[in-house]
Order: sequence, then structure tokens, then C-alpha cells
Amino acid sequence: MNEKELIFILENVAKGSLSVENAQTQLKKMAFEDIDGYATVDHHRAIRKGFPEVIFGQGKTSDQIVGIMTAMSNISDEVVLVTRITYEKALEVIKVFPDAIFHEDAKMLILSRKEPEIRSNGNILVISAGTSDIPIAKEAYLTAKSMGNHVNTIFDVGVAGIHRLFAHRREIENASVIIVVAGMEGALPSVVAGMVKAPVIAVPTSIGYGAGFGGIAALLGMLNSCSSNVAVVNIDNGFGAGYMASSINQIRNHA
Amino acid sequence: MNEKELIFILENVAKGSLSVENAQTQLKKMAFEDIDGYATVDHHRAIRKGFPEVIFGQGKTSDQIVGIMTAMSNISDEVVLVTRITYEKALEVIKVFPDAIFHEDAKMLILSRKEPEIRSNGNILVISAGTSDIPIAKEAYLTAKSMGNHVNTIFDVGVAGIHRLFAHRREIENASVIIVVAGMEGALPSVVAGMVKAPVIAVPTSIGYGAGFGGIAALLGMLNSCSSNVAVVNIDNGFGAGYMASSINQIRNHA
Amino acid sequence: MNEKELIFILENVAKGSLSVENAQTQLKKMAFEDIDGYATVDHHRAIRKGFPEVIFGQGKTSDQIVGIMTAMSNISDEVVLVTRITYEKALEVIKVFPDAIFHEDAKMLILSRKEPEIRSNGNILVISAGTSDIPIAKEAYLTAKSMGNHVNTIFDVGVAGIHRLFAHRREIENASVIIVVAGMEGALPSVVAGMVKAPVIAVPTSIGYGAGFGGIAALLGMLNSCSSNVAVVNIDNGFGAGYMASSINQIRNHA
Amino acid sequence: MNEKELIFILENVAKGSLSVENAQTQLKKMAFEDIDGYATVDHHRAIRKGFPEVIFGQGKTSDQIVGIMTAMSNISDEVVLVTRITYEKALEVIKVFPDAIFHEDAKMLILSRKEPEIRSNGNILVISAGTSDIPIAKEAYLTAKSMGNHVNTIFDVGVAGIHRLFAHRREIENASVIIVVAGMEGALPSVVAGMVKAPVIAVPTSIGYGAGFGGIAALLGMLNSCSSNVAVVNIDNGFGAGYMASSINQIRNHA
Amino acid sequence: MNEKELIFILENVAKGSLSVENAQTQLKKMAFEDIDGYATVDHHRAIRKGFPEVIFGQGKTSDQIVGIMTAMSNISDEVVLVTRITYEKALEVIKVFPDAIFHEDAKMLILSRKEPEIRSNGNILVISAGTSDIPIAKEAYLTAKSMGNHVNTIFDVGVAGIHRLFAHRREIENASVIIVVAGMEGALPSVVAGMVKAPVIAVPTSIGYGAGFGGIAALLGMLNSCSSNVAVVNIDNGFGAGYMASSINQIRNHA
Amino acid sequence: MNEKELIFILENVAKGSLSVENAQTQLKKMAFEDIDGYATVDHHRAIRKGFPEVIFGQGKTSDQIVGIMTAMSNISDEVVLVTRITYEKALEVIKVFPDAIFHEDAKMLILSRKEPEIRSNGNILVISAGTSDIPIAKEAYLTAKSMGNHVNTIFDVGVAGIHRLFAHRREIENASVIIVVAGMEGALPSVVAGMVKAPVIAVPTSIGYGAGFGGIAALLGMLNSCSSNVAVVNIDNGFGAGYMASSINQIRNHA
Amino acid sequence: MNEKELIFILENVAKGSLSVENAQTQLKKMAFEDIDGYATVDHHRAIRKGFPEVIFGQGKTSDQIVGIMTAMSNISDEVVLVTRITYEKALEVIKVFPDAIFHEDAKMLILSRKEPEIRSNGNILVISAGTSDIPIAKEAYLTAKSMGNHVNTIFDVGVAGIHRLFAHRREIENASVIIVVAGMEGALPSVVAGMVKAPVIAVPTSIGYGAGFGGIAALLGMLNSCSSNVAVVNIDNGFGAGYMASSINQIRNHA
Amino acid sequence: MNEKELIFILENVAKGSLSVENAQTQLKKMAFEDIDGYATVDHHRAIRKGFPEVIFGQGKTSDQIVGIMTAMSNISDEVVLVTRITYEKALEVIKVFPDAIFHEDAKMLILSRKEPEIRSNGNILVISAGTSDIPIAKEAYLTAKSMGNHVNTIFDVGVAGIHRLFAHRREIENASVIIVVAGMEGALPSVVAGMVKAPVIAVPTSIGYGAGFGGIAALLGMLNSCSSNVAVVNIDNGFGAGYMASSINQIRNHA
Repeated sequence: MNEKELIFILENVAKGSLSVENAQTQLKKMAFEDIDGYATVDHHRAIRKGFPEVIFGQGKTSDQIVGIMTAMSNISDEVVLVTRITYEKALEVIKVFPDAIFHEDAKMLILSRKEPEIRSNGNILVISAGTSDIPIAKEAYLTAKSMGNHVNTIFDVGVAGIHRLFAHRREIENASVIIVVAGMEGALPSVVAGMVKAPVIAVPTSIGYGAGFGGIAALLGMLNSCSSNVAVVNIDNGFGAGYMASSINQIRNHA
Repeated sequence: MNEKELIFILENVAKGSLSVENAQTQLKKMAFEDIDGYATVDHHRAIRKGFPEVIFGQGKTSDQIVGIMTAMSNISDEVVLVTRITYEKALEVIKVFPDAIFHEDAKMLILSRKEPEIRSNGNILVISAGTSDIPIAKEAYLTAKSMGNHVNTIFDVGVAGIHRLFAHRREIENASVIIVVAGMEGALPSVVAGMVKAPVIAVPTSIGYGAGFGGIAALLGMLNSCSSNVAVVNIDNGFGAGYMASSINQIRNHA
Repeated sequence: MNEKELIFILENVAKGSLSVENAQTQLKKMAFEDIDGYATVDHHRAIRKGFPEVIFGQGKTSDQIVGIMTAMSNISDEVVLVTRITYEKALEVIKVFPDAIFHEDAKMLILSRKEPEIRSNGNILVISAGTSDIPIAKEAYLTAKSMGNHVNTIFDVGVAGIHRLFAHRREIENASVIIVVAGMEGALPSVVAGMVKAPVIAVPTSIGYGAGFGGIAALLGMLNSCSSNVAVVNIDNGFGAGYMASSINQIRNHA
Repeated sequence: MNEKELIFILENVAKGSLSVENAQTQLKKMAFEDIDGYATVDHHRAIRKGFPEVIFGQGKTSDQIVGIMTAMSNISDEVVLVTRITYEKALEVIKVFPDAIFHEDAKMLILSRKEPEIRSNGNILVISAGTSDIPIAKEAYLTAKSMGNHVNTIFDVGVAGIHRLFAHRREIENASVIIVVAGMEGALPSVVAGMVKAPVIAVPTSIGYGAGFGGIAALLGMLNSCSSNVAVVNIDNGFGAGYMASSINQIRNHA
Repeated sequence: MNEKELIFILENVAKGSLSVENAQTQLKKMAFEDIDGYATVDHHRAIRKGFPEVIFGQGKTSDQIVGIMTAMSNISDEVVLVTRITYEKALEVIKVFPDAIFHEDAKMLILSRKEPEIRSNGNILVISAGTSDIPIAKEAYLTAKSMGNHVNTIFDVGVAGIHRLFAHRREIENASVIIVVAGMEGALPSVVAGMVKAPVIAVPTSIGYGAGFGGIAALLGMLNSCSSNVAVVNIDNGFGAGYMASSINQIRNHA
Repeated sequence: MNEKELIFILENVAKGSLSVENAQTQLKKMAFEDIDGYATVDHHRAIRKGFPEVIFGQGKTSDQIVGIMTAMSNISDEVVLVTRITYEKALEVIKVFPDAIFHEDAKMLILSRKEPEIRSNGNILVISAGTSDIPIAKEAYLTAKSMGNHVNTIFDVGVAGIHRLFAHRREIENASVIIVVAGMEGALPSVVAGMVKAPVIAVPTSIGYGAGFGGIAALLGMLNSCSSNVAVVNIDNGFGAGYMASSINQIRNHA
Repeated sequence: MNEKELIFILENVAKGSLSVENAQTQLKKMAFEDIDGYATVDHHRAIRKGFPEVIFGQGKTSDQIVGIMTAMSNISDEVVLVTRITYEKALEVIKVFPDAIFHEDAKMLILSRKEPEIRSNGNILVISAGTSDIPIAKEAYLTAKSMGNHVNTIFDVGVAGIHRLFAHRREIENASVIIVVAGMEGALPSVVAGMVKAPVIAVPTSIGYGAGFGGIAALLGMLNSCSSNVAVVNIDNGFGAGYMASSINQIRNHA
Repeated sequence: MNEKELIFILENVAKGSLSVENAQTQLKKMAFEDIDGYATVDHHRAIRKGFPEVIFGQGKTSDQIVGIMTAMSNISDEVVLVTRITYEKALEVIKVFPDAIFHEDAKMLILSRKEPEIRSNGNILVISAGTSDIPIAKEAYLTAKSMGNHVNTIFDVGVAGIHRLFAHRREIENASVIIVVAGMEGALPSVVAGMVKAPVIAVPTSIGYGAGFGGIAALLGMLNSCSSNVAVVNIDNGFGAGYMASSINQIRNHA
């Protein structure tokens, strides 16, 4: 339930077209809803945070995912995102929600019954260092897109051949917010951030081997960036990067 | 040298009031300037990134700091920030730059020959979990302030007595960007980010002991935040948080 | 063999209804029993610690588990708990002990031939941060329940939507001991402990990814809690949390 | 302000012996009090948690400590504890609060204007593995004592000569709660917990060298204890152990 | 080739019963032998170290293992040990060496064409903390046995029920060398070493979970033992423990 | 495209045998080429670095690998290397490039349509400590060979039988560059480097178990080598070692 | 009190030359003695373990050290060892025990009122890799010497110039037990152990910098030794190595 | 003693101008020399490795350093390098060797009685990322210089302003070997190595704070470089980098 839906209910009560009892029933669920004891869905989140709760698929059964999606889609027609969901679980969920689309590389399932409304004139740019980083970059892309932002991508422009990056200089300089996804030594966010004044969200990936330690090398590299317009999210957290970028791109700084 | 100063030079050349030779001399330094072989000051940064290079004081002698400050203040009248400078070195520098102000708790030296121009209608809020985290919070505050932002602070509102935080709910909900500074378990950014739609910059501090591991516990806590509008900077990096918050608060998303 | 059973034997010897030889045979096993050289069952534990030895299923074959269960159930009718047992091994064991019940999410097998006697007026509350943490929370619940305690649960009330937690304030304030199970940043125990005077047992889970490091982030967060009525058990150790909570709930502080 | 003091104010208002204005002034501070912007003292804590806020001395100036102590002692006559305070800072504080007592080994400062009321018939036992662990054991002892508990101690009974421990068997078996403080391999809590049914709070210390890693070896040993009635606090956190033990010793399980 | 075999060759040359050419051929291989470029078998080892090279099965193909065993058994009739060999590889090897015996729990393959000669009057005792540690304890047992030592075992006598250990006190005090195998907190070697003057070889195992970190907790516990007659081998290195114990049990200290 | 091919194009333009339009088309791809949005092939690399881009197979689909190989083989007839490619993916690629050869132990696929031209009179020697380290040693061998170097190998000469190493002393002393591949304690590079003046590239492998920590022990050993003519590459990075050795063997130090 | 002194007391009681009361007083202290509540001296250790308790000086005050030394020297005339004692504390102790000798490099204080009796025909050899490792090697030497062993030393024979080691081959091959002390990559124990059949005790030192991590690199190297007659003690634990070597050199394997 | 000096001795013996006895005395020291038991100087190293032993100053007393320098300068007039020597120790040494020069920033002492002979036409380039990295870069510079190489430097050209680096493109492309010194995220070696075909030695420094972990972040970044002509030395090991670069610059690849 988002703010518009809330106002809609209240106005109908005011007009007399919705009984107090019915309004009460709908609004009681607004704070949160208990689903069979295994989940407490935070329906208030869309009002408080501008976007509904997102379902973290890892460690949940497909039945639990379906249950939460049902509760969410009953109370609002906002987009429903499921992250870190396997192919097998996604198949089960799609049986119940045939409109939902599964993005296999990003491991996301998206139930979107209307085109997301664009909420900012700014644009978000997602850059990846290597081809192997693309799944995480896609997760960031899909998240930011679903949250109502213009989003573009540039893939495979790592620092070992830095002229490939510079060829995109204009596009980079024009972005409002930049997400940089990189594994191995994670050097790309520093170089990109050194070129622009826009904020850069750095996403370390677990791509690499040996002393890459599943993304720790990239994570530490990004946390120690000598460029200062950089902040970091968890390893492989494309979703969080897209969410954070959207929250930046939609800030109220011109009130 | 910022963009205005660059245009000023070019216009004077156009008007004939500045000779080509003199303009050339000034502009040659614009890219960068080599100081006695120990530093290569990036004068182009103010044009490219909207704010001049900042001097990382740790590991530099006071002579080196004075040298870089001299080069920077010769070419522009923008604010000069020195971070992580000890009391002893600051005393030496102030002998040469008596206008510079040393902030002992934040370990910053600021040379500001004009009031920073406010570049955004948004406002940045700096929250600290404990009294011991204040030095890092101050570093964030001073950086964001120097870069031309409205900045407010709320200190000592950690999660062990969470009603103290909720008493500031209105101020928190009205901020454009929020910086949350916390040591120990670093739980505060998650709680704050769960309350708002604004982006939250989380700063882990080295406050704590034992299994706090000099800020690692807080850093990991913040990287794993279950709230998604959170990104993280290095341990004790108040400067980076202030810089990133400023870069967010001044994004061009309504062009 | 618990204290009652010991007294029962001795009284029968006193009454002459049990020969000394038979009593001796039974009591010789009381200290411990060697099973085919692979296990030394500590039958004395129920007397010393108020609860019999618990079988750690990981790394044991189903034959070994059956052997130990047989030895234990021969000597006493106390509940027998097997933890960290896989579905496959549990099937094998149930063939021999058809009364045993396998709890698949908690990976526990429980052989309980009588209802556990309630040994305290206090009550234990198990709280989990997310739906994915429920298996560990269930392990804690089942352990505490089997050891003779009143136990309640509240699931999926993490700090990203903290109003869900506060809605249970009364229940939380009335608990004698609280177990809080959380993965990711592990912030929930600090918040809960800040609300009450009861002791809080914090259980980090391995839920999360990347810099969650299989539960290390949550573990460190809990060890560094800024609330002081918190102590921590091993990652994913729901069993230990339930056992410790029971031992707290049954302390002799009003002798 | 504790519950008794709150009732006292309200009763006087009821009797007319305290004006509403004065009561209002006193009660407004009850939630929390802002001290010069650097601290937000949680005066409500004594009501909520049964014990007032404790001052974490590390990282605070002696002026800040004095300021917080003044605010606390103005509003209540409960004991004021300052932990992790250096000798130098303690000297400064004692100039303002000459009644406060500094315990140098435990690095605690205690301002106690009345004998703490004993709040449980149970008793807490503090055991240390080595002589070098005594400062942390003392911190636990003083905390639990100040919070109104019977507390005893046994020092230097490590596992290398385990008969020293067994000589205290009766005292160990009679304790309601046991705190075990150990550095190096941290094996003592497992052995003690194996002897009793009481809950054991394990405190790893940073005593040791090399692969002791400042207490990590002991911490990990305790988290992996093969005895289940054990929970762990942070390295060198004697204060937390004493606080947790007190909260256990005073639980309401016989309501 | 061991020392006896070397002397045998030389004596036959002396007696004229072996031609110089044939002796030369046999002795040339004595230093080492190159097998198809993938292995350089150190045939000199039995002379230098009293026991032939042992084959580390992990990461080798069954063909490579057969090749090395062939080379070794051609030149000497000493026992051939293969460690860390899987069931599948062992099956392949046994097709070629039907006399070899595979010990599944210890993951060892032993080709022993004569009973190992006992080389010391001392005896080695292998103690394990838990049932799950038995495979590693068996690896130590089989190694020490194959190297010509009297070896005994006591299994499942961990510190949580320490009376089980004390029941074996006489056997423990009579051992010449003791191997203690333990996972989890790894406390058992300290307790055993505190009881005796014999040297104790501590073997950490990867048994445990969570903050056991695959044996790191046990390893650190053992390295920080407060008993001094303890030295440690790698995690799960039962083979190394058995080898080291044998080398201790056979030292020449009474020359 | 290498330098020769570039000159060839330009000379043909000069001679009039290649139109400006065609030359332009060919040269436009020289910098880099975008393949369906998932890869940006750096065709300029052969000119800049003397060897074309190498395809990191891990995390790429076989379709992506085929796409990049097609782009590379269209523009030049230099060798194409694919590293860290599985057997399954290699089969798919070989269907499209039947000339490509898959080296299963080294997990490399090599498409080489002409014999690599030898570019140095020096020779590279690859030494491995154990049989299990051979796959990584092979990866180094194949890389250096493909890049136009004389390369030799010595396998299984670890420090536990150091006479095996010394038997190769002449070959070791004659090498221009030495690659030493070792797992476990990683001691071999120090010993080899102490024998020669040639530069030594040390490659830690993940061979080992327990406290080998997947190659960390070997990596740290090599980084701390007490011999100074040693530099280190990532764990299991045979490719990087071969590449670095080639770049050393072909340096321009006699210009 | 050692075994001889115990027998002496008992024989005098038998002969009537010592009253039961006096014998009782002396023997009561035999188990352990409580010193002012801060230490529980294990007087029984000399009987049980063949050598009295050793005082770990770190973290103890000089008063505590004097107190324990007094208790120990009152009850027996065995040697008293204090390890890890600073120069300042040693000065204080020597005022009370002027016979005690302080070894500054080894940071040991030794009170030896009679020459230690040699208890084995074997000999212990202490080898150090570098000059900077000598203090730890000395600690091992002094410990083994005080415990009644023949001990020799060879210093500064690290693997970077391995011929220096081989020059001592005969001495190395003749030792009964070898202690090898090394920092940096810690490779020396593997090389030495590969040369002999004697057991090798490896002592990692904190000598080094950067990725030596205070001895972790050396520790891991030694734990992963490819020679099997190696066991390891804690970083910088020269004392433990000397103790363990003595316990090996004095084993009862020829009873 | 280097090869020339060895030939000189032998020729003089041949000519009869040096007696066999005197030659023998000089040559006996050639292998190594024992100095008062604390050091075994490897005089053979200059012959074997082309450069004499270098003295690692850390952990040695000034007396030990003087002793080793005396032994070395008696036998040869090659340069003597002392690394990681403090100001205080250097002062003591210079009293004995007044010709020695102390380089305070690099913490090196150099005794050079003749100009080092240039042994290669190639040239080494040392690049540092920041001003604070200069001391380590100087150590590399001085080492390579002393070993007979042409060496140049470029300082303070980190990736946050990458145009500063590109301004030196020609110098970078012309170097035979490049040393890149960087702290923080350690990204510079990847970028530099991507520009050239020369080998790059990467030196991580401990410059940074927080999650820089004393150089670990930079070290991991460099080990995971996506450019392949990179190998890495220990954190802050400027000496090793200079030595390795020299050994590369002087390889015999054109024999």
C-alpha cells in the first residue's frame, strides 16, 4: 500500500463510499501482516520508504515466497521483487503468478502489473569491469529500473585496458549516479570516481580466485578508494546498489 | 582553480586584458603541478569534480603539507582541507597560514578564505551512536559544511535506548541525506535507514575493544544491513562520508 | 538416569526389593558406558546437570546414533535429543525407534516417551529476525521445550521495520529469558536487550552472503552489543541457546 | 531515576505536596537528557532495565565523564559506574566527586552513595584461570556486586593443574550463576560447565601472546564449548559478564 | 630401500655374489627415481629418515599412485602408506595391488608385505575427544602402528564429562607419547598434558560448525595451551601426528 | 592485431593497394570491439603489450567464449588463449573451433594457427614442489610457451628431500627466469632463489588442507621469502606466472 | 616438592623423626597453595610432571612474582623459572632473590640453587634461522638446560644460503631432538626435518613485517610442513619448545 | 667477495705472488663466516647471486650490525646495505663506519666505497601513488641504484587523478622494468601494467587506515590484478622490489 492508495481509502471514507468497518479492515493490515507465523510483512514500508518490502529469496521455500507475494499483491498493485531466487523455486512461483518474469542471470523474479512510474529526471549508469560481473550488474539494473529510474549500462571496461573506459567519457560524466561493479582487485570505482563529481556506488563481486577470497580483495579495495565520492555495498549485492542508487536519484534536495 | 576562475581567465584573454603568455602560465598549472618531486597537485580536480584536492595529512611532513597548501592557495581561493593532521603538525602549518583553523577532535585543518557557497537546498544530517564516536562525526560535519551544504547533527542516540532516536523522528525524516556514525556492533544505520527513504551513508568507527577488532565488527554489520538504502565507507572515514553525502546532496537529477 | 531414578534404586535396595547385585549392575553404568569402543556415554550427566547427554548428529553414522540412543534409553526414560541429523540418517534411526519424531527444519530428532515436566514458572521467548532464521529458532524452541520450560515464539521482526517488534512489546517485557536469533548484521539482540531487564541469549545465524562471512558479521555484532544483558552462543547454535536459556530459567536463586 | 523515585514523585503530586510544574520539570528529564550536545543520558533506563546507564570511559574526556555523572547524580542516588577509565582521568573525576572510588586493576570508578540493596537470594561465583586474568575478573565482580548480588571469587585455577579446580567443587556446585574468566586457550569454561547445571558466562581475556591473537583463541574456544550451558561475552568484557550474571541472578521465574 | 637392504647389497658385492654392474644399477635408484616426469620418488628417505616416503593421495590420480607404489615396491619390501585417498581411487589401486588394505574411515591404503618390526619398548596412546573425531584418530593409530610402535586408543572422553577421562588415568600416565585428537574448542590436550610428563601431540580436527571455522578454533586452542608439554600438527593431520609420535618414541636418547 | 599487421595496413594504404575506407574500417576495430553488449575486446592490446587479450573462462558461458574468440580470430592470426575453462565448455567451443586444443590438467584451451615465434634467447624454467602442483605448473608452461619462449620443466622436487633439487643444480643455474610452483608451506621458492641470481616468480597453490587455508600458507610463505629475488602471483595463478616470466624474458634491457 | 622430597618426608614419619602433625602441615601444601587470593601455586606439579610450575611473568606485578617465588622456594629447592619478565620487573625481583639471574635477550629470570641434574643421555639441538630469532632460541636453550638436558645451538643458518646449514650436517644428524626457530616464511624446519629421523619442534617467531603478520606466515608454514617429523608450538614460544623437547628427550621408552 | 676478487686471488697464486697458505686463509672464509656465534655471514653470496648479503637491521643490535659490516668489508669492497635501521642505531654504526650514509626516509644505511658499476643498458622506473608512499619508493630506488642500474622516479600519480599518470606515458613506456608503490586500494599497478609490456613489480604499502589493515587491502588488490605482467612483493618491501627489479634488469637472456 503506497501513499496514493492510503489517500484513496481515506477520501472514500470521507465521501461515504467506503464504510468505516471496511476501511478499518484494510488499514489494520497497513502496519504489518502476520502470515502463518513464518513472516511479518511490512505493508507500511511503501508509505515510509517509497517502495514496498522486497523478498530475499535465499533460505525461503517457494511456498513461503508465494505466501508473501500473495499478501503483498492483495494489498497493493506495486511491483514485487524477489531476489536471490533459484531457477527451481522460480518455476514453482510462476505457476501461481504467471505474470511474474524470471531473470536467470540476475536470479530475480519480478511481478510488475504496471509500468513503473519514472520518479526522477536524473539517470543512473551501471558499469561493470568484466563480462563475468554482468549478473550482479544486471541485478542492480533491474532493481533501479523497477523503482522508477532511467538506467543505462556499460559492460566489460576494466582497468587493464583503460582506453575502453575513456571512450565512454561523455556518458559517464552525464550520469546522476553511477554504480560500478567489479571483482578481482576492484580498482574500477576509484578510476571512475576520479573522473566525475557524481556519487559512485561500488559493488565488489566474488569473481576471481585464490587471494580474491570470494570478493574480499575487491571489497577492501573499494573501501580504501583514494577517490572520495565512493561508498560501498556488500559483495555481490547488486540489489542493494540499485536500491541505494534509486534512493539517491530520488532525493528531495530541491524542495 | 574552479570553473569560474577558468572562465574568468579566458574572458580576460578575449578582452585583451590578459596576455597570452600570462594566461598560458596560469593554465599550464591547471592540469597538475609538481612540487619539489614529492607531490603532484591535481589542480584540475576542482573543475572535474566540483571541489579541489584534499590533503591527506597522515604520513606527510608539515613541510610537505605547507608546500601543497601554498601551491593550492596560489592558484585558487577555494577552501583547503587537511585531514588526519596531528596537533603538532597543525601548529607548524598555522605558523605559515595563520588563517587556517585546527579542529582538534576531528583532526582537521581548514583554510577557508571565504564562506562556502551553499550549493543545494537539501540538508545533510549527521547522527552518532555514542559520545566516543563524535570525533569522526565532526570530521563528516566539517567536510560537508566546507563543501557548501546545510548540515545538522544529533549525537549519542545508540540502539541500547532507542527511544532517544525516535524523539528526533521528524528531523530524521526531513533530511535529504543522512550520515550515521557508529562503533561497536554498528547497528544504528540499519535502524535509521528502516525509518526513511533518504540515502544513508554508514561510517563504522574503531570505538570498542576485543572482538570489535578496531571497527571490523561495525564495518561488517553495516555491509550486511537488512535495510537497503545504506552504503558504507571505510572505518573512521568521516571525511569520505561527508564528501559522499555532499556529492549526493548536489546531484544533478532535475536537469 | 536422573536423580529420582537413582533414589528409586537405592530405596528398593533399602526395602530389600532389589538385590545388591542388580543394583550394582545398574549403578556401574551410571558413571559412563563404553559402546563398542566408539562412544563413552555419560550417564551421570542427568544427575550432575539435570538433563541427559545430547547426541551431536553431525559426523556420526546412523548406526552410531542408534547405538548411543539404545544405551541411553535402556538406562532411563528421559527424553533423548539428537541434533544436526540429516533427513537420511533420521529415516534410518526411526526404523529402530519408531516413536522418535524428526523435525526437518530444525534438523532434530526427539525421542520423548513422556511429556517433559515443567520445571520453572518463568517463560522463555524465542524471537527471530527473519523468515530464513526460523530453522535455528526452531532448534532453540524444541530444545528449551524438551527440557521442561514454557516457550513462546515471535518470528520475522527484524530491525528494518522496527515497529513490527514494538507491537510485541508487552510479550517481550514479560519474558523471563529471551533468545534472539538473527543473521546478516545481527542487530536485533541489542535492540531487544535495550528494552528489557531480562537476560538475552543472542544466536548469530549463517543467513546472508558476501561480507556476512557465514555468520561472522552477526557474531561480531552480537559480541559488541552496546546493551549489556546479552551473551552469545556459536553461529547457528540454536540448540545451545535453548539449553542455556533453560539453565537460566531453572536457576536456584530463591533457595 | 528508578521506579521507587518515580512513584514517590507521583504520590507527592497526589498528596498536593509537589506542584504539577515541579513534577513536570523532574519528569521531563526522565526519558533522556541532552548534555551540551555531546551526550544523551538515558535516565529512563533505571525504570526500564532495573539499573541506570553505565558510563563507558574509553574515548571520553574526563570533562565529559564529569558532565554525565553530574546529570545522573542530580536525578537519582543510584550507583554510578564508569568502566575502562584510566588512572589519569579518574584523578580528574575524583576532584569533582571525592566519594567516588577508583579500582585500579579493574579500571573502574564507582560512585555509590548507599550500599546496594541485595535483590536475589542466589549467589554469583567468579572464577579466573590465571593470575593475569584477575583484572577482568575484578571488573565482573565489582559490577555484579554494585548491582545488588552476593558475589564470591576463586582465582588461578586453570586446567593445567585441574585438581586445584576440583578442590572447590562444593562452592562451584552451589553457585546460582558462574562467570569464568580465561585467556590463552580458554578451556576452563567447558570444564566448569561440565560439572554443574547452573548457567556459565564465559569471558575470554586478551592474556597470552602469538597465536592467542589478543583473545581470539580464547573467544573461539568458548564459542565452541562442548558443554552447552555456556554463553560468551566480548574479549576482556568483565563488565558485561557481571551485568549479564546479575540479570540472570535476578530473573523473575517464580512470579 | 632401508639400511639393512643397503648393507645386504654391499656385503654381496664384497662376497662377489653380486656384480658391480648390478649393484650399480640398484644403487643408482637409491637417491631418487623419476617416474614419467610426474614424480621424483625419494628412495633415499628410508635410509635417511628410517621410514620410506609416504604417498599423499589428495590431488593425485590413481594411475599416478599406482606408478609411485610400483617404483617403491620394486626397490624395497617396506610398508607403503597412501594417505587421503578416496574410496574410488582406492578401488582402482587395489586392482593392481590386491594385498593392499583400504581403511575407509581413516582414508588410508596400506600395502604391508611383512609385519612391521617393533622398534621401541615405549607405547603410544591415541585419545579422541568425540566420536566424530575417530577417523583422524584412526589415521594416527594406523600410521604409528605401521611404523613399528605399540599403540593403544581411548575414544570419546571429552572435557564436558571429565570423569570419563580420569577413569583412564593409569593408562594415560603409563604412555610414552600421547596423541590427543579433538575438534570444537580443542581443550582436551591441555587437560591431558597437565596430568602427565610425557610429550603430547595435539591434533585439531575440523569437527564442529560456525565459529569452529573448520578446525581453527581447536588449532588456536592447542597452540595456546597452558600446559607446556604440548606441540601441535595441522588440522586433521592424523598422519603427521602418528609419524611425529613414532619419531619421538624411537629417539636415540640412551646411546 | 599486432604491430606487424598494423604496419602492413598502413603500407598498403601508402602504396594505394588499400582504400582509405577499408583501412578505416579495419583500424576502427583496432582500439576495441563491443560484442553484443557483454564484452569489449581490447584489440589494441597486442600492439600495446606484445600479446593479445587472454580470455578468462571462469564465469563466462561457452557462447560468450566463442563470441570473443571469433572477434579475436577475425582481426588477427595471433594465438588465442582461454584459461580456467571446464571440460564441458571446452567441448562446446571446440565444435566451433576444431583446431583449438584443450589441455585438461591445465584447464586451458589454445587456438594457435601458427607456431609461436621465439622472441628471446633466454629460457624459462618451471619447477614444481609436488606431483599435485603439476596442473598449475602446466598452466604456466603452456602460457610461456605460447608467448614465444624456450621453456623447460622439473617436477616433484620439494624441500622434504632437498637432494632431489640439488641434482638439477646446473639446469637451475642456467635459467634466465625461474617459476617455482608450490603448495603446503611454500618453502621451495626461497631455497631455489637462494641458489641463483635469476629472478624467481613464486606461485602458491591451493594444494594442502587444514591450516593450508586453500593456499594462504604458501602465499604468505612466499611473500615473506628471506631470498630477495622473488616476487609472487596469486594462488593457483599459473597463467599469470607464465605471462610475467615471458614479459621478463623479453625485456628490452640491451637497447 | 619433587618425588624425592616426598619420599624423604614419608620415611622420616616412618622412622619417627618427623611428627605426624608436621608432616601433615608440609603435605597439605603439596597439592597447591593459595597466595593472598591472587595465585594458586601447583606444588604437586613437580611430582606429577617431573618439573615444578613455571611463572608466566607477563601480566603479573613484580610483587606477585616475588610472592609465588617465595612459596615455591620455601617448599622445594628445585629451579624456579620466570618467563616473559621485563627488565624493570626483574630488577625488583632480584632485590628479594639476589641469586636469581636475569637473561635479558631471552627475558627470563632463573633461580637455580643447584646445578640441574642431567636426566637423559640424549642431546637437544637448537637451530635459529636468523640473528633476529636468537632471543627466542635462547629462551628454548635456557629452558631445556634448566630442565636437565645436554643442549647445543647453531644460529643464523636460514634457507637463503642453505650451504651454511649443510656444513653442520653431522651435528644435526646426531641430535636426539631438534628445535628449529624461524620467522619470515618459516621454511627452515621443513628442510631440517627432511634431513633427519629425529623429532623436530618448530617455533615460529614474530620476526618479519608486512604479510608476516607477527609470525602467522611462519606459523602456517610450519603447520603445513611437507616433512612429517615436525610439530609446532605457539609464535615466539621458545619456552614451550624447550619444555616439549625436554619432555621428549626424557621419555620412558626403554622401560 | 665477488667473482673478480676470486679470480684475482687465484691468478696471484698461479703467478706465485700469493702463497698457498694466505690464499687458503682468504678462501676459507669464502663460504661463510661465523661471527661470535650470533651471525653466519654468507660471503659466497656475491659469487652465487651477483650481490653480497644485505643486512636486515630490524631486531639486530647496533653492535651486531657493526660486527657483520666489519666481516663483510674485510673480505670485499662491494657495497654494504643495511635495511630497516632506526636513526638511533644508524648513529652508532656511523661512529664506526663514518663513510656510511644514512637515508632517513628509506631507513637505509649504505656503505659504498666505490661507485656501483652499471650492469645493464636497461632502466628501472619507480612510480609511487602518493606522497606518503615515498619512503618505500626511496628504499626501492636506493637498492636498485646500489646494485648497478639506471633508475628513475615519478611520485604522487595515483588513480584518483589519472591524467597525472598519462602525462608520463612516454617515460613509462620506455622503462625496462617498472616498480609501482601504492597503499590504500593498491590500484595503480594494474593501470600501469595495462599500459606497457614491461614487467611490473608491485609493492603494497601500509599507508591508509581502517579497512586498509596495514597494507592488506593493497596487497590483495595487487595479487588480484587483472593485468598479467604484475608480480608482488611483501607489504612495505621496497628493498625486495628494488632487488627483484635489478635481478630482472640484469638477466642473461641474450647469451
